[in-house]
Amino acid sequence: MRKVYLDNVSTTRLLPEVHRVMKPYFEDEFGNPSCVHEWGDSAREAIEKARVQLAQLIGGQAEEIIFTGSGTESNNFAIKGLASAQQKKGKHVVISAIEHFSVLHSARTLEKCGFELSLVPVDRYGLIDPEEVRRRIRNDTVLVSIMHGNSEVGTIEPIKQISQITKESGVVLHTDAIATAGTIPINVQELGVDALSLSGNQFYGPKGIGALWLRKGVRITPLLDGGVQEGGRRAGMENVPAIVGLGKAAELAAADMTARNNQLILLRDRLLSELPSSIDHVRVTGHPEQRLPGNASFCMEFIEGEAMLMLLSSKGVAVTSGSACTSRALKASHVLIAMGIPHALAQGSLLFGFGIDNSSEDVDYILEVLPPIVDRLRQMSPLYSKFLKGGE
Amino acid sequence: MRKVYLDNVSTTRLLPEVHRVMKPYFEDEFGNPSCVHEWGDSAREAIEKARVQLAQLIGGQAEEIIFTGSGTESNNFAIKGLASAQQKKGKHVVISAIEHFSVLHSARTLEKCGFELSLVPVDRYGLIDPEEVRRRIRNDTVLVSIMHGNSEVGTIEPIKQISQITKESGVVLHTDAIATAGTIPINVQELGVDALSLSGNQFYGPKGIGALWLRKGVRITPLLDGGVQEGGRRAGMENVPAIVGLGKAAELAAADMTARNNQLILLRDRLLSELPSSIDHVRVTGHPEQRLPGNASFCMEFIEGEAMLMLLSSKGVAVTSGSACTSRALKASHVLIAMGIPHALAQGSLLFGFGIDNSSEDVDYILEVLPPIVDRLRQMSPLYSKFLKGGE
Repeated sequence: MRKVYLDNVSTTRLLPEVHRVMKPYFEDEFGNPSCVHEWGDSAREAIEKARVQLAQLIGGQAEEIIFTGSGTESNNFAIKGLASAQQKKGKHVVISAIEHFSVLHSARTLEKCGFELSLVPVDRYGLIDPEEVRRRIRNDTVLVSIMHGNSEVGTIEPIKQISQITKESGVVLHTDAIATAGTIPINVQELGVDALSLSGNQFYGPKGIGALWLRKGVRITPLLDGGVQEGGRRAGMENVPAIVGLGKAAELAAADMTARNNQLILLRDRLLSELPSSIDHVRVTGHPEQRLPGNASFCMEFIEGEAMLMLLSSKGVAVTSGSACTSRALKASHVLIAMGIPHALAQGSLLFGFGIDNSSEDVDYILEVLPPIVDRLRQMSPLYSKFLKGGE
Repeated sequence: MRKVYLDNVSTTRLLPEVHRVMKPYFEDEFGNPSCVHEWGDSAREAIEKARVQLAQLIGGQAEEIIFTGSGTESNNFAIKGLASAQQKKGKHVVISAIEHFSVLHSARTLEKCGFELSLVPVDRYGLIDPEEVRRRIRNDTVLVSIMHGNSEVGTIEPIKQISQITKESGVVLHTDAIATAGTIPINVQELGVDALSLSGNQFYGPKGIGALWLRKGVRITPLLDGGVQEGGRRAGMENVPAIVGLGKAAELAAADMTARNNQLILLRDRLLSELPSSIDHVRVTGHPEQRLPGNASFCMEFIEGEAMLMLLSSKGVAVTSGSACTSRALKASHVLIAMGIPHALAQGSLLFGFGIDNSSEDVDYILEVLPPIVDRLRQMSPLYSKFLKGGE
């Protein structure tokens, strides 16, 4: 059976070139970078090289990179650490309604500690209006966090315009760039943000590694206390092989970005245009233009996403419904709900995440196997029967 | 030049057998365990297998294991999360004076949030008297955290006796077992603890992975908010290859523990007895019997540890002075100070951490290269000149 991995939203395959540079650090180069000996020196040089590689990907400086254990840790660190470091100034935080749970739930934790939280709405394409951000900034606002791109619906947010507003107000701006870093061009100076989260496994790098870029001079309270690693901002022995892999993945992403995206956009646009012609009652979700290159997301009426995933899996196809973290929780995505999509329709969410291994034959295969699956599920759906009767 | 790695306290070499089982998860088995498809299923099965392997190492149940990104994260999670979950009951925490910084600084962070902290002293061997713990428990004490073994001086603490006291008082007991798990036999039921931290890189497993064992029914507040991974207790995509490696390292540690330790104890005891005969003014630190099998720690009078490390490194030898995290901070170890060792003497700390790759020839080499280094450094030491004059 054909195997088609179209879940590059959840995680990507590690590139063999990245794995290759990691290997020595699983073998002879196993030192602890904090140590004063040859093994330590070698490990320390390796992570400093990776820091430069990663900084170059996003137009930052190496000393502004703080390595973390995941994108989720980067977001927790940013939200809790930036708010906490400035709480004498005020206790109000602004985020969007479609942030990843690692941002949203971190902000909820701040609420338990006496912070107030304002949510910025999105339009039906998942797009944020910068003026809606401006309207929520108060005298006691200390942090705005708006994601750069939404992995569930692909929408890319106008961070540059939002940063002009936060700069005018003197408020720190964080962006969750986990879906975009290594995928679309990012320059932290042009974006105008103060902090940016990213994750290695989203651009063909290793799992278990993320980073927070933090503009020089911006204060943050550590999330992990202990040793003085990462300039005293993130304790714990550095995950040397994963850091080395993240650096290499960043270098390759920067070098190959245009070629990768040309390919992804072709596949994405073909599926976005052809799937709705092959299946009735399908709605494309997300923005038509401001969109991640590999993202093709839909809602299928009269169907539960979970059932589609299982039947597609039986055909060798890996996709997701809503975010990876919620796909097993069987809840309608808060992102789709915030976009005004009705609850029942949001349950039928289906998300294709194209990656560099995909080809046009994969789109052919989806267009072949998905329509009968949808037909079969709809025949079992009481909602669909009701709809057909109503339509008669 | 001979290369002698004697810094297994800072980190250990990954076993080739462990690296081997990790490799498929850097290659074809790259799925996200939260996903509903073949790639996800395979990743999920792999981490659940590792959870069983790790639970077996410490006599716990698989569902009581929470994977984290490091030992430091496990300790932060335990101290902050256990105290926070019970703060309605009280805001007093008891730890020992010789805890790792990831415990000590986490407890200091709790102080900033309104908790009170009591430190339990140690004797000149670094040993904690359980009665000193009892004396510090109050009605509002919600957490006691005492390390199982101290990596700097090798002393193993009487956790079993301490747990009898915390049980009588109904107080949650956490132990930092990062220096002991995978090294000496541990059974969480016999120890009687409620939570236990461990780290993969301390027993020939990978970096970037740790775990917190948490007794079923004990409440904890997450440190990382977001998705529902690890039973909703630790968000962030699971680091699949590292988890698989940790599981395998645990299995091998359990199988080979006795053989490994017989070898380590021989090397350790030889150095502990012969070094003080080869060099004047050397004091063995730590407990003579209750001691980690690979730990030989000393303080050299009239010398700075840092200088010794550099000269030993020039002879191909890797050791450390104080803890790995402080070795670059050039501060006298808080552990040695708590043991009553004078500040100047504590500066001359030298710590040999034997591992399974070491042989008796390594001890020969140390006994050959170290005395001339010590002589050379002492000849440059004003304190030593003063001592010699005083002694004439």
